[in-house]
Amino acid sequence: MKAILIIADGLGGRPRDAGGKTCLEAARTPSLDALAARGALGLVDPIGPGIRPGSDTSHLSLLGYDPHAVYTGRGVFECLGMGMGVGPGDVCFRANFATVERMGDGFRLLDRRAGRIASGQEDLARALSGIRLKDVSGVEVEFQASTEHRGAFILRGKGLSRHVTETDPHEVGAVVPLARPTLAAGEGARRTASALNEFTKRSFEVLEAHPINRARAKEGKPPANVVLLRGASDLPRIESIESLYGVRGAVIAGGALYRGVGLACGMERIDAPGATGGLDTDLRSKAQTTLRALERLDYVFLHVKGTDTAGHDRKGPAKVAFIERMDAELVGLLVAELDWDETHLALTGDHTTPIDFGDHSTDPVPALFVGPNVLPDRATAYSEREAAYGGLGRWSGRVLPVLFGYNNWNPKFGS
Amino acid sequence: MKAILIIADGLGGRPRDAGGKTCLEAARTPSLDALAARGALGLVDPIGPGIRPGSDTSHLSLLGYDPHAVYTGRGVFECLGMGMGVGPGDVCFRANFATVERMGDGFRLLDRRAGRIASGQEDLARALSGIRLKDVSGVEVEFQASTEHRGAFILRGKGLSRHVTETDPHEVGAVVPLARPTLAAGEGARRTASALNEFTKRSFEVLEAHPINRARAKEGKPPANVVLLRGASDLPRIESIESLYGVRGAVIAGGALYRGVGLACGMERIDAPGATGGLDTDLRSKAQTTLRALERLDYVFLHVKGTDTAGHDRKGPAKVAFIERMDAELVGLLVAELDWDETHLALTGDHTTPIDFGDHSTDPVPALFVGPNVLPDRATAYSEREAAYGGLGRWSGRVLPVLFGYNNWNPKFGS
Repeated sequence: MKAILIIADGLGGRPRDAGGKTCLEAARTPSLDALAARGALGLVDPIGPGIRPGSDTSHLSLLGYDPHAVYTGRGVFECLGMGMGVGPGDVCFRANFATVERMGDGFRLLDRRAGRIASGQEDLARALSGIRLKDVSGVEVEFQASTEHRGAFILRGKGLSRHVTETDPHEVGAVVPLARPTLAAGEGARRTASALNEFTKRSFEVLEAHPINRARAKEGKPPANVVLLRGASDLPRIESIESLYGVRGAVIAGGALYRGVGLACGMERIDAPGATGGLDTDLRSKAQTTLRALERLDYVFLHVKGTDTAGHDRKGPAKVAFIERMDAELVGLLVAELDWDETHLALTGDHTTPIDFGDHSTDPVPALFVGPNVLPDRATAYSEREAAYGGLGRWSGRVLPVLFGYNNWNPKFGS
Repeated sequence: MKAILIIADGLGGRPRDAGGKTCLEAARTPSLDALAARGALGLVDPIGPGIRPGSDTSHLSLLGYDPHAVYTGRGVFECLGMGMGVGPGDVCFRANFATVERMGDGFRLLDRRAGRIASGQEDLARALSGIRLKDVSGVEVEFQASTEHRGAFILRGKGLSRHVTETDPHEVGAVVPLARPTLAAGEGARRTASALNEFTKRSFEVLEAHPINRARAKEGKPPANVVLLRGASDLPRIESIESLYGVRGAVIAGGALYRGVGLACGMERIDAPGATGGLDTDLRSKAQTTLRALERLDYVFLHVKGTDTAGHDRKGPAKVAFIERMDAELVGLLVAELDWDETHLALTGDHTTPIDFGDHSTDPVPALFVGPNVLPDRATAYSEREAAYGGLGRWSGRVLPVLFGYNNWNPKFGS
């Protein structure tokens, strides 16, 4: 048996998204509707009723983990998803290249994204990773650049702690704050805060003097002269999916965060050519990569980001169009190529991103299950309202365990 | 955006309540039905499936708190709701004036409600609050009278504990029990039990000698000559709604308990003129007070008690009549006056009070949500059976967080 979990990020909607309909209702989705007609629908609260999910916590919950118990912060997933090695005790961060000016002992923020720097970031990253801290002994740093101004950062050493505040002021004109240990966090947090504060100063010295930034200055571009850090976190204590269910699988996702969550749960990472994590992503490539991966693996977790991006951008028609493209180019291809006697598929969102809110909301999301062991319900189309009347009812999180259950993969609890 | 949560106490019903129908099904409710047609319904287990809710625990759960984690007992909500100041470490009780006779060292209960004493209770309360305990040093007492025989009582002092048994025997003819520390409760509970037992004796001395009781004796009425205490509790550790969601609101309720729960969650208390907490309450006044409160506050929690009172009295027609009056005088007025582009409303019960049981049952309650971000479902009327087929499915508690979610007020969990 094989299993596919498709999470279309921010898929869910509200009635004002498309003139009394949700984007999913407004979109023409013959492939999804055909699957709904053969399978069963339900409503899922990604974490719980009335809980507004983050992307990291909702994915953990949908994959079967309790985010209230295991979640330590976002940075570690970004680091893992960017291919960085994370060991026990490492403290991980999301990072931004930013532009600051000196102000007294500190720095004032001029551009939080360093003019959305588009080249040279890898050279800057190498220079940052070469920094040797002096104030705190035995602590090493690693920086890796991602798209544009984005990056990830790891502090490595004994006795560090994730219980520190971020150094991103989030507001132009504000002073870059010092990292501080959070309440009652002890000596490790103090050491970690000291290391971060030294890194902030040293990153300015290294970056300000770097040839890439001198060149940017000549071109009148804001220099990427500091690194802002947030999402402090360490490796969550997650029992791997292979250990829990005895099956092996892969994550296919354009976005580093989603790859990172999959890796933290013990999945293999497979990159689909042309998968960008954006609205322009190559959905056919993702479908084909999924089919190839299933030749040798038990399951695939396939993440699609465009639905959420359109929601954050408050672009209803773009969300409708992306859903239609997903239906035709991804779902349609899977429907045609999968062996439906041997496969269960689930498709849901990790949360709702309503158009007029432009951020994650608390609404439950529609979930579709299809395959030989799914008792078909009365639904004839895939949408929030069809799911509200679906045969599976409403529950919280755990979509992957429900999917695996149809494959009889789940361990017995008790005897 | 604005939000209104209406809890009609004991609203739910069972098929024998009104000849094969529930009282809600039997009642003519055009305003509620119109809201149901525009909004969406679901079934809510106030605390959880098969859990029979108290009024205090169910309200905590519906407001988004876990009563298993935060509930310490009922007394503290009664004290808060009656306007008494409660500080950390204070031990609070519900209190009854009762009639006893001396029996050896103790007392035998003659009338648990002191003949439903209807006047002079405030004079008696003042006399009780003047008692200075001698057996236990540094402990002060405060008594406040409520309606008829009811009151509330606080013990104040260092090192007290709520882990003591009650002094209400609940049965005429029984001996008034001594308060005892409950299992493994330690020194604080022993001190508290001693203080309570001294108070019981002293309350008898003070009350027996009081002019009000001498006058009652002359009139052949049972004297209110002792105070029975139950619901020992201290201030629950509740993070305020303002701290959790960043919004400010008020509780409008005739009953002290409900005001107390609202106050414990950080709501402001607003008293509607003519709101009695009984079947005769002025529902138009409560609706108008709600509308006025929403001019300056973000949300209102409006509590209506009559539905439950009729249920406890096992009076089906009275419950039907009260529901019809609530529909016309409260819901109808709100429907006409609210700005429906800017408001979400939820209406539910805190539990079911079936007519032939006359007490809280475990049945789930119908919940209605309506407003611009609610995806309308197929329901065309408001009732238990329509809600069972509603588009929102079934979940436990958390009605306020779900309501606030439609207003985009909830903090994100995760990133």
